[in-house]
Amino acid sequence: MKLDAQWITGFVDGEGCFYVGINAHPEMTAGFQVLPEFTVVQHKRDVQVLHALKSYFGCGVVRVNHGERMAYRVRGQQDLNEHIVPFFAKHSLKTKKNVDFIKFRHVLKMMEAGVHLTADGIDEIRKIAVQMNRGSSR
Amino acid sequence: MKLDAQWITGFVDGEGCFYVGINAHPEMTAGFQVLPEFTVVQHKRDVQVLHALKSYFGCGVVRVNHGERMAYRVRGQQDLNEHIVPFFAKHSLKTKKNVDFIKFRHVLKMMEAGVHLTADGIDEIRKIAVQMNRGSSR
Repeated sequence: MKLDAQWITGFVDGEGCFYVGINAHPEMTAGFQVLPEFTVVQHKRDVQVLHALKSYFGCGVVRVNHGERMAYRVRGQQDLNEHIVPFFAKHSLKTKKNVDFIKFRHVLKMMEAGVHLTADGIDEIRKIAVQMNRGSSR
Repeated sequence: MKLDAQWITGFVDGEGCFYVGINAHPEMTAGFQVLPEFTVVQHKRDVQVLHALKSYFGCGVVRVNHGERMAYRVRGQQDLNEHIVPFFAKHSLKTKKNVDFIKFRHVLKMMEAGVHLTADGIDEIRKIAVQMNRGSSR
């Protein structure tokens, strides 16, 4: 299945999620790990669409999400910065999910600058993450 | 907001619904009314996307759906046959929702032929409707 950039943008406006997780992690300097993640969840009957997204972006994994739902998921700063962020910077989302995307990109920029390695930086990222994840909850 | 056909297809693959309602209606010859309906539901924060769909298709209404959710809805055989069906016949949905669309189009064809005006026809349409609505329930 070959996907069109505008189709992907429309589908992600509906089904995509930009999420920033912040987990306690004693081995990290600031005691927390920041985990930005892009996901698209679908019923398993449409798993071929998730594989087509994986193939289009050239990164990420397709895994069971919950019960009969599957997820296409991209984690890792490099894949997000090189494949996901440039795509949605070029092809703007039309729903309020674009606001989440802009915050998501901002968090990735902060991480590039090492902001997430200090306790103050974690607090700053947490404030952004809380705003983002509220909007995209379903 | 200007929409692209492929964006709409992607968004409807995620958020759209092709539905055939069958309601008891004593004034109809067969005792039932068949109500095909195309809907896209969004949180009210994205109501402008629903208005953009209405403007693109040149038919339908934007109404409150439930609580904070709004719906773009197209009913009526003429609007569905002239505006909605030709669009999705030209721009194929990529998820299994396309199977629902094909059944939806089939029901509209049956209605054009007057099948819904007999009790046997209602039974035939009901069998199709039950299959459709199962797949797209969320």
